[in-house]
Amino acid sequence: MLDAVPPAETVGRELHDLIARLYPICRSISGDGVRQSFELLRPFVDLEVTEVATGTAVFDWTVPREWNIREAWIADSSGRRVVDFADCNLHVLGYSTPVRTRMSLDELREHVFTHETEPDWIPFRTSYYSERWAFCLSKNQLDALEPGEYEVCIDSSLEDGAITYAEAVLPGETDEEVLVSTYSCHPSLANDNVSGIALLALLGRQLKGASHRYTYRLLWSPGSIGPISWLARNENRLGRIEHGLVASCIGDPGPMTYKRSRRGTAEIDRAVAVVLRDLGEDHRIREFVPLGGDERQFCSPGINLPVGALSRTPADEFREYHSSADNLDFVQPDALGSAFWVFMRVFDTLERNRTYANLSPKGEPQLGKRGLYRSIGGGSSQEAALLWVLNLSDGQHDLVGIAERSGLSFADVALAASALEEAGLLSAT
Amino acid sequence: MLDAVPPAETVGRELHDLIARLYPICRSISGDGVRQSFELLRPFVDLEVTEVATGTAVFDWTVPREWNIREAWIADSSGRRVVDFADCNLHVLGYSTPVRTRMSLDELREHVFTHETEPDWIPFRTSYYSERWAFCLSKNQLDALEPGEYEVCIDSSLEDGAITYAEAVLPGETDEEVLVSTYSCHPSLANDNVSGIALLALLGRQLKGASHRYTYRLLWSPGSIGPISWLARNENRLGRIEHGLVASCIGDPGPMTYKRSRRGTAEIDRAVAVVLRDLGEDHRIREFVPLGGDERQFCSPGINLPVGALSRTPADEFREYHSSADNLDFVQPDALGSAFWVFMRVFDTLERNRTYANLSPKGEPQLGKRGLYRSIGGGSSQEAALLWVLNLSDGQHDLVGIAERSGLSFADVALAASALEEAGLLSAT
Amino acid sequence: MLDAVPPAETVGRELHDLIARLYPICRSISGDGVRQSFELLRPFVDLEVTEVATGTAVFDWTVPREWNIREAWIADSSGRRVVDFADCNLHVLGYSTPVRTRMSLDELREHVFTHETEPDWIPFRTSYYSERWAFCLSKNQLDALEPGEYEVCIDSSLEDGAITYAEAVLPGETDEEVLVSTYSCHPSLANDNVSGIALLALLGRQLKGASHRYTYRLLWSPGSIGPISWLARNENRLGRIEHGLVASCIGDPGPMTYKRSRRGTAEIDRAVAVVLRDLGEDHRIREFVPLGGDERQFCSPGINLPVGALSRTPADEFREYHSSADNLDFVQPDALGSAFWVFMRVFDTLERNRTYANLSPKGEPQLGKRGLYRSIGGGSSQEAALLWVLNLSDGQHDLVGIAERSGLSFADVALAASALEEAGLLSAT
Repeated sequence: MLDAVPPAETVGRELHDLIARLYPICRSISGDGVRQSFELLRPFVDLEVTEVATGTAVFDWTVPREWNIREAWIADSSGRRVVDFADCNLHVLGYSTPVRTRMSLDELREHVFTHETEPDWIPFRTSYYSERWAFCLSKNQLDALEPGEYEVCIDSSLEDGAITYAEAVLPGETDEEVLVSTYSCHPSLANDNVSGIALLALLGRQLKGASHRYTYRLLWSPGSIGPISWLARNENRLGRIEHGLVASCIGDPGPMTYKRSRRGTAEIDRAVAVVLRDLGEDHRIREFVPLGGDERQFCSPGINLPVGALSRTPADEFREYHSSADNLDFVQPDALGSAFWVFMRVFDTLERNRTYANLSPKGEPQLGKRGLYRSIGGGSSQEAALLWVLNLSDGQHDLVGIAERSGLSFADVALAASALEEAGLLSAT
Repeated sequence: MLDAVPPAETVGRELHDLIARLYPICRSISGDGVRQSFELLRPFVDLEVTEVATGTAVFDWTVPREWNIREAWIADSSGRRVVDFADCNLHVLGYSTPVRTRMSLDELREHVFTHETEPDWIPFRTSYYSERWAFCLSKNQLDALEPGEYEVCIDSSLEDGAITYAEAVLPGETDEEVLVSTYSCHPSLANDNVSGIALLALLGRQLKGASHRYTYRLLWSPGSIGPISWLARNENRLGRIEHGLVASCIGDPGPMTYKRSRRGTAEIDRAVAVVLRDLGEDHRIREFVPLGGDERQFCSPGINLPVGALSRTPADEFREYHSSADNLDFVQPDALGSAFWVFMRVFDTLERNRTYANLSPKGEPQLGKRGLYRSIGGGSSQEAALLWVLNLSDGQHDLVGIAERSGLSFADVALAASALEEAGLLSAT
Repeated sequence: MLDAVPPAETVGRELHDLIARLYPICRSISGDGVRQSFELLRPFVDLEVTEVATGTAVFDWTVPREWNIREAWIADSSGRRVVDFADCNLHVLGYSTPVRTRMSLDELREHVFTHETEPDWIPFRTSYYSERWAFCLSKNQLDALEPGEYEVCIDSSLEDGAITYAEAVLPGETDEEVLVSTYSCHPSLANDNVSGIALLALLGRQLKGASHRYTYRLLWSPGSIGPISWLARNENRLGRIEHGLVASCIGDPGPMTYKRSRRGTAEIDRAVAVVLRDLGEDHRIREFVPLGGDERQFCSPGINLPVGALSRTPADEFREYHSSADNLDFVQPDALGSAFWVFMRVFDTLERNRTYANLSPKGEPQLGKRGLYRSIGGGSSQEAALLWVLNLSDGQHDLVGIAERSGLSFADVALAASALEEAGLLSAT
């Protein structure tokens, strides 16, 4: 499965290019910006796009009205636009109601958010489920405004419509699924989460060209309401999901970070941990907590799917989080490319992971007569992987578990298992 | 339950006052000193006093004869009393048989105990189950005795009678019980254990005025034979005891120390650990060992109740242990008062601890529409407790367990659970 | 059981003497050298010797042809023997096919092994399952050979015959067995494993003179093929083996090393760990890995016996391993003698280990009236072992487990259990 994967450098540059095209679009939890973003993914992967109408009940939630925005600005008394949505879509509070009026600077201040610590950065703020309007400015922009009257315009609409999610299904030999989910509701924030949107597209392209036993389902949807809608509409088929990952924030310079599923020791949890260990690079494995991203929905107690979260620095742990500094310079091709490879290695590990039964379990089988053993007895054994696989292939340990326990790489363990299976000494259970 | 608890300073002073009144009385595992002590508790709590007659079989034991003592002294050849029980009741070996005779200093030495390391301290020694008589002196007192003839008098009696224990029952909404036990058999030793005797009285007064679901049973009884007698007489109702603590030595300056029950992870074990953790002060949590105090009886293998031991410095770990230095100066109001609060916090935690079922377990429920969530999306969530409670309310985790796992305080977790229950999102299982 | 064990110094010297007699013999996985070695053990223990014929199928293996060797040498053109098997039997590759020919030095080099790092040491090499011939020389010997023609002679035979293993059975009160296995296939390598061969003989002599409840089965057999043959021929009685040890390499100066059985927490694993802990000397406890010696066979997944491996420095971890430096100077009487004692202590622990039921489990029984308790109450208890045994004798803990948990020595715990059993307070379950 990994043979056809392009070098990290190549795929990293492709990811950055796609991110650059997606970045300027104004996305939210609904609206045309999301639809327009999905169109940019079609060259990479076949998409099925679903619209869930405003007012639809999804579990405990109701799908909200659709938000669209055409323009927004603040003009001073001379008519000069001192703040313009056209420059940066973070300038408008997400889901702002429409407004067109004049007011004093003091009144305007009541409708302005600035970044808490960085005077040059525009913060990203939203008000999805409570109606209001506001602008987001850098502290320096706000400070530069002279007292006087201002005209404000937010030409937005908040109307019955739909939320939109997209799926790409890459069929495998079986209908057991690997679910990879990401959120598509953020506007111009490059790492959080244009990087995740782009990642899934290129993973889809890669998986389309490979043979695999699992069916891969890629899901782009707005945070919270998206997975909730998808889960509610697919409740009767969740049993097919064998493994899952929530992917996000894969372009920053931080180490790969895996947050275990609520189950804690699911196969996906063990597989990712072994992949990251084998890579030998700095990384972090964390226990499940019910805070964070969409894993909160997939790991809610009534759903409890084996879904972990794989990212570089998790959202809200990097300084640039939810600000205009999470821009195209912040995400780097090499970080993107090597993260892509981590995801592919995880898939490859899931594909090759098996629980075997040793068919010659009484004593060791004679490896020498099968050409699996060096013929001159001498130093210490170099057949460790063969012996580990034979010893633990008792139906209780999968190859990932053998890699964990032995300290050997999954690659070595899987290679040994293949050789033993070929020699008729192992049978997959 | 904690609203009406007086400040630690106030209750600490009350405890010290009661200790000062109990301190001079000569108690033992039986006798009138114990009865007299119990009378001093009646102003605080309704007591039911039980006498178990000498000769009664209680499990493997037989209730011993009752010991009483009127006076005891050693007089020199001039008739001067050089040692007098009236000065300090530690001067007589507990359960000494009566004696009135004359003997040389050398003969007398055979009947004298001194402290092993401190020349000024009188040791506390007993011989409950083997008949003998002796005096306990400070090393300096003994050294000061001139050779010559001495008259010794111990006017004690060892006769059929009873051992005496007292109970106070504070009925709750249910007949599930919290047992709090302490030993009442030590004479003038302030920390070990007049402090425990006084503590239970004031806990009883506090609980009488509060509403609670558990019924609280306070038990004052002589060490070993007391709990054994009580257990033997209440064997058919032990199933009602849901949680228990052995309380003692709560007035010294050492950190609070909890010794787990034999079960190790009983609810009481987890609750005390969370209370001590949340307080943020130095404390110690220890595994169960079958040495120590009355927990040995409650945690014997055929009884195995969920009873831990909560103290400051456990008996026999402080230097003043079993000596005249364990006096009214050694126990301090602030130590007493803050220990009282720890016990009340443990009770409060037990009262509020529940296992809930999340009634909206598929995905997260929409907290915003119920006013449980800030409306402006922005920084990191401050709703951690709500999300933890929702996620782990699967019937498998109680609130104490959620506090342990999340690292959040029990107070925050319980507050979140109340809010969620009120919102109809949780139901106690 | 330990009363009659000679001092470590005495038994260490006896072991070294026996090792010195066994050392010169040329053993292999078959052949007369093995039989001759077994004859030297007969003065110590009654042996039952088994021959398994060439061609016999044993599990996945087939018993190989028997190898014997009479002489072997390399002579230079002047007829001088420059390498002679008579000097050191390591000079010939184990299982070399016969050869008698002349060749140049360059051709000869194709049939020579030298030690990888030590120029003075002759390496030990074998080719059991692939036919070839070769000599093993020190690097210095090889370098000293002048160019020219050499005559080589290996007068060996590789013919149908048998492999040979020996057993000594020391019957106990029950037919539950303790198996102690060692490998007998190495020629002149003193620690690895003449030391193991000799150890079992002296253990057998010791056990013959002692009374024990377990039946001890000592097994000397060639590595891998030996245990596999024995297991195949005894498959229907493996259920009798309650505990087992693979013994080897017990004469070097390194610390005792125990490798747990595949089960990890079998009684033998816990017993050895407690014995080594109680001795208070440097030692190592390791998890099971399917590399190493004959434990690979006993712990194969279809056999999975509770068999650990007990040695000083495990084979292939000491520098002298598989070389002429593993000689009679390398094994020391004091190391041998104290290792002997460790084995005997392990046996003694297994013999005395029991799971008891406390017959007075409600509260503590009154130890004082049975003379088990000091009569004067005073300092801290010295009856810890009595209380630990009583508290944990609930049918769930054996004495080894009580020693582990309490931190008390097994000797103290077992002594307490004996006293309690004698007092009628415990009954073995």
